[in-house]
Amino acid sequence: MTTNHLRIAIIGGTGAQGKGLAARFAAAGHTVALGSRDAERAIAAAVELSDLMPAGAGEISGAANEAIADGADVIVVATPWDDSPTSVAWLAPYAAGKVVISCVNPLGFDKRGPYGLVVDAGSAAEHIAAQLPGALVAGAFHHVAAPKLVKVDQALGDDVLVASDDATAMAVTCELAATVAGRPGINAGALRMCRHLEPMTATLISINKTYKTHSGINISNVELASD
Amino acid sequence: MTTNHLRIAIIGGTGAQGKGLAARFAAAGHTVALGSRDAERAIAAAVELSDLMPAGAGEISGAANEAIADGADVIVVATPWDDSPTSVAWLAPYAAGKVVISCVNPLGFDKRGPYGLVVDAGSAAEHIAAQLPGALVAGAFHHVAAPKLVKVDQALGDDVLVASDDATAMAVTCELAATVAGRPGINAGALRMCRHLEPMTATLISINKTYKTHSGINISNVELASD
Repeated sequence: MTTNHLRIAIIGGTGAQGKGLAARFAAAGHTVALGSRDAERAIAAAVELSDLMPAGAGEISGAANEAIADGADVIVVATPWDDSPTSVAWLAPYAAGKVVISCVNPLGFDKRGPYGLVVDAGSAAEHIAAQLPGALVAGAFHHVAAPKLVKVDQALGDDVLVASDDATAMAVTCELAATVAGRPGINAGALRMCRHLEPMTATLISINKTYKTHSGINISNVELASD
Repeated sequence: MTTNHLRIAIIGGTGAQGKGLAARFAAAGHTVALGSRDAERAIAAAVELSDLMPAGAGEISGAANEAIADGADVIVVATPWDDSPTSVAWLAPYAAGKVVISCVNPLGFDKRGPYGLVVDAGSAAEHIAAQLPGALVAGAFHHVAAPKLVKVDQALGDDVLVASDDATAMAVTCELAATVAGRPGINAGALRMCRHLEPMTATLISINKTYKTHSGINISNVELASD
């Protein structure tokens, strides 16, 4: 698989995180399909995003989740956590042998602020992996702020942490991270590391509220091969 | 309480993290007492550290854990997690009304690498808070690499994330973070945020192994008041 030009399907692609990632992927020349349970919503989101794209961007289309999964090279799962436990198993026939990237953050909110939910499978990424036998699952893109993602003319400046038990999924996701963040993703370890990466998003949301910003994570003292 | 010159007791101060923090605190002029279950070990660590201190540094002494807690303005708990469940309750008589900073990381290691342990209380910091009624508990310094801490002539360059439910503990710890990191700590939210901060250390250890480095965390897009 070359990552020069991929067909990327974003399940739950009409949410803020899905649209933000779609914008960066398309701006880098990839062909992106936004999926939704409601095809009309997916089409509307694709039209809206396409209008923001610079010259030379890849095509952005929209359709029902099931319709976009079949022809994809890479599947990104960007559904809210409420949806995920019930909505992932249907992906299994399309996902075997493919790279599937979870950017799902199981978060709760109460009067003390945001917090990471306890997940039976350990993490959303492991939950997804358990439902998709044969898929090459990685977790990534948990911490990149959606409002920054859609501004594709501005460098993101944050690191993307990637967790996976599969070498292909790790390599492809780290390369895709470069098209999002301007630098390759950082290998953060085994897929179960998503137990820590996912709820760390709650910390960033708390910081965002306190400092009125869109924060992100940079890892210091890591030298990445230039892309 | 002024943080200009504090008496800081570091419980479990002979470990790498405790010694590293002690070095930074003393280099900034604070008086530091290293504690250990074994007073001889604490004294030896204090002598060793004192030899590394620049001119003008605060005094570093060593004694048994119980002996250092009484006279301290701030108590730092830097024990290994194995110790914490049994060793913290004795601190209660000394800790009421004082700022107590947990930098405890409950971590496990197996063939797939480091991982965060599941903690009944939610996090080590919450476990400590539950055993110390009246203490002003914060969690901080989880992510700063010990080998970098002891090199007090080199700027750390990493952020310190601080979680607390108490405004005094938050303010004092953020100021102390400035003496460690060269910039004030970042308010990361409620004390329970330590559920996410503590195991994030497993991710950094995994990154350190993969990239042969001592990584740390910087939070992007947060403007801190200059110290």
